[in-house]
Amino acid sequence: MTGLRTDLYELRMAASYLRRGLVEPATFSLFARRLPARRGFLVAAGLADALTFLENFAFDDDDLAYLRDVGGFDEQTLTALAGIRFTGDVRAVPEGRVVFADEPLLEITAPLAEAQLVETGVLNLITFQTTVASKAARCRLAAGGAQLIDFAFRRTHGIEAGAGVARASAIAGFAATSHVEAARCYGLKPSGTMAHSYVEAFPDERAAFRAFATDFPTNPIFLVDTYDTPAGVRAAVDVVVELGLTGPLGVRLDSGDLAALAKQTRAILDDAGLTRAQIVASGSLDEDVIAALVAAGAPIDGYGVGTRMGVSYDAPSLDSAYKLVAVGDRPVLKLSPGKATLPGPKQVFRDPTGASGDVVGLRDEPPPGDREPLLVPVMRGGRRLEPADPAGEVRAARARFDADLAWLPEAARRLVDPTPLTAAVSPALAALHDRVAARVGGGGRY
Amino acid sequence: MTGLRTDLYELRMAASYLRRGLVEPATFSLFARRLPARRGFLVAAGLADALTFLENFAFDDDDLAYLRDVGGFDEQTLTALAGIRFTGDVRAVPEGRVVFADEPLLEITAPLAEAQLVETGVLNLITFQTTVASKAARCRLAAGGAQLIDFAFRRTHGIEAGAGVARASAIAGFAATSHVEAARCYGLKPSGTMAHSYVEAFPDERAAFRAFATDFPTNPIFLVDTYDTPAGVRAAVDVVVELGLTGPLGVRLDSGDLAALAKQTRAILDDAGLTRAQIVASGSLDEDVIAALVAAGAPIDGYGVGTRMGVSYDAPSLDSAYKLVAVGDRPVLKLSPGKATLPGPKQVFRDPTGASGDVVGLRDEPPPGDREPLLVPVMRGGRRLEPADPAGEVRAARARFDADLAWLPEAARRLVDPTPLTAAVSPALAALHDRVAARVGGGGRY
Repeated sequence: MTGLRTDLYELRMAASYLRRGLVEPATFSLFARRLPARRGFLVAAGLADALTFLENFAFDDDDLAYLRDVGGFDEQTLTALAGIRFTGDVRAVPEGRVVFADEPLLEITAPLAEAQLVETGVLNLITFQTTVASKAARCRLAAGGAQLIDFAFRRTHGIEAGAGVARASAIAGFAATSHVEAARCYGLKPSGTMAHSYVEAFPDERAAFRAFATDFPTNPIFLVDTYDTPAGVRAAVDVVVELGLTGPLGVRLDSGDLAALAKQTRAILDDAGLTRAQIVASGSLDEDVIAALVAAGAPIDGYGVGTRMGVSYDAPSLDSAYKLVAVGDRPVLKLSPGKATLPGPKQVFRDPTGASGDVVGLRDEPPPGDREPLLVPVMRGGRRLEPADPAGEVRAARARFDADLAWLPEAARRLVDPTPLTAAVSPALAALHDRVAARVGGGGRY
Repeated sequence: MTGLRTDLYELRMAASYLRRGLVEPATFSLFARRLPARRGFLVAAGLADALTFLENFAFDDDDLAYLRDVGGFDEQTLTALAGIRFTGDVRAVPEGRVVFADEPLLEITAPLAEAQLVETGVLNLITFQTTVASKAARCRLAAGGAQLIDFAFRRTHGIEAGAGVARASAIAGFAATSHVEAARCYGLKPSGTMAHSYVEAFPDERAAFRAFATDFPTNPIFLVDTYDTPAGVRAAVDVVVELGLTGPLGVRLDSGDLAALAKQTRAILDDAGLTRAQIVASGSLDEDVIAALVAAGAPIDGYGVGTRMGVSYDAPSLDSAYKLVAVGDRPVLKLSPGKATLPGPKQVFRDPTGASGDVVGLRDEPPPGDREPLLVPVMRGGRRLEPADPAGEVRAARARFDADLAWLPEAARRLVDPTPLTAAVSPALAALHDRVAARVGGGGRY
């Protein structure tokens, strides 16, 4: 069922390991080689889905029949694959924590074939959600105190990705999502009122607004830009007065010069005594547009952020890697130009005072000074250490991000030309690198 | 189960339509408002998944219980939602066809609430796969005759997106995919041999290559850049000679100066008499890198293209829209700045000679001259007109793209500064626009 959710080469390598009895535990380390341009930090996300993937990884009879057709898998190997489950240990940086280049987000230690087979799925899930959470975090930094709503579902990369984006943006601090199933699954606030089509389905704007506010009198948000924005705002005001609405309500602007229209809209609303009416803006928003609106003093209370956050438009993926760092007790590395790796299981040590940058060291070396180790055990023997709790995991991750955002140095958090922290390599890790590189016949001193 | 895979506002609007008895058939049109920079054309894709989404759209008891909690949905509305299925008609441009801005890829005619509820899912699936197929098509144009292999799964936006990317890239002419489950589902050729971790898991490269070629003697591809590429190629040659391999085989280069390394590798292979050995390149490839390698005369037989194709890195989404164009017999439009729409159900008429551009006209107007109408009926009364056939659909779509690629004018197909075709508006559609715009009190002549 899920065992074919991998690259063919993982299966070929696993088959070869199984045949040869290479069943030693191996450790793979997942990290970003570098941050995309315009990213001062990453927000770790996707771990919960990765753990679910690991728990469910298995081959059923149809999978094995297909591999028999593909060829190269003998019956003994297929029998071995039939029994394979993920039985390894996982250490990871908890979701919502801020991380930087070359810092392991996750390390898997498992029999070589298992650790290899799950590479594709784990790398996929962590890369995707970390990419989106990191983009959403920039929107949050831009928006100041205004609320952010995830509107991305219609243009995420497939249906499943819509839920991942809702989740990742919630971790970064988005207050609500338009995605109803994701809201249910992750305990998020669902949000949304009307589209242009609703306005067009009625003879005129007033008729549409009247119908909607009658049907949904609790906090209706009137979409006012279908024909002419100021006229739309006045129509909304008329309907509010006509129906005697006294509760929370608002208008949404989805096109045009949002800064100018927001000011004009605010004036019309205030003149009508609707100072309580909120203004929500949407339409091709990203952190740059939001920052410009904030800088222009646009009186906008909430931003509906869709596609550009949901696909992380300016950097839709990460240069992430899942690299073998040890086989049994033997640390390994690769020396490929531009893609060299450091050997051995690792730990990231953080200075909680923010006075100095992170240190990447060996998993088992003592933390230097009062530094906090970021990777914690999350799975042992193929079982998560905490039971799955989709809503609770998002809440906890969001709280971690809130704390790390307060910790993050200004140079890393600014939107324009941010300077990410650079992780230093501990002396013990540097020494190990030099020993292993010498053994495989390449590389100089670290 | 699937009914909450939508935006909350779709549910609110649908509830309002149902309460008010607004059950007239409405027509929505799905199109790209403009092409991304560096796109001369789009490749229509995602229709098969959209039809599956439509066939499965329904609310179960848990969905309705959740909506009761969200609030604003009375029992009568919940009962109506419980019975709702998609019962409409769909016309669409078949997958694999080339399309341009403002040309409907799909039109749905269904009772207003149904057509509204499915917006998010349909827009999502068509936008995603069309985005990726269009990017993959550019890789194909760059590669000339060389084979392309989809390596994207590890960094697509989630697990499901990996399958969508395999499918979309196959439509654009990719020859194989690393994604095993997608290969099975869509009848694609699965491809892949070894990763760096395999090489590192053995004491040295020769041992790894020997083990792999022993286990997989059919067309082994040796990954030669783990430590030093020329040494890796020589190790592969030694193992081929030692094992007396006589069948197809190759090497893969995944880092460094690929053009120079490919030439060096070709020389080493040829000197050893392995003129049959293929060279596959991978590593952050996209159409620009491939074009540069081809221009440099790099002797590369196949390209493994991953992340940059799979997330359509330079343009990870489309400015797509799903817009109401008619309610019953009444054509509608919106005039929002930059997002104005044309009213009425439509058809796209194409000049098969390529001598003139496409014409967008009314659905029911006669084709001008010998032009071919692109939209064809694909679903009637909520049932697809052809049974689902995942592998057959991809094959047919790929054949359509092959034909359209031969038809495509050079200005639209070139990689650098392409000029997309511009669709003309038929006189009948222009006249309808003017009438409707005058009715809603805005807009001048089309």
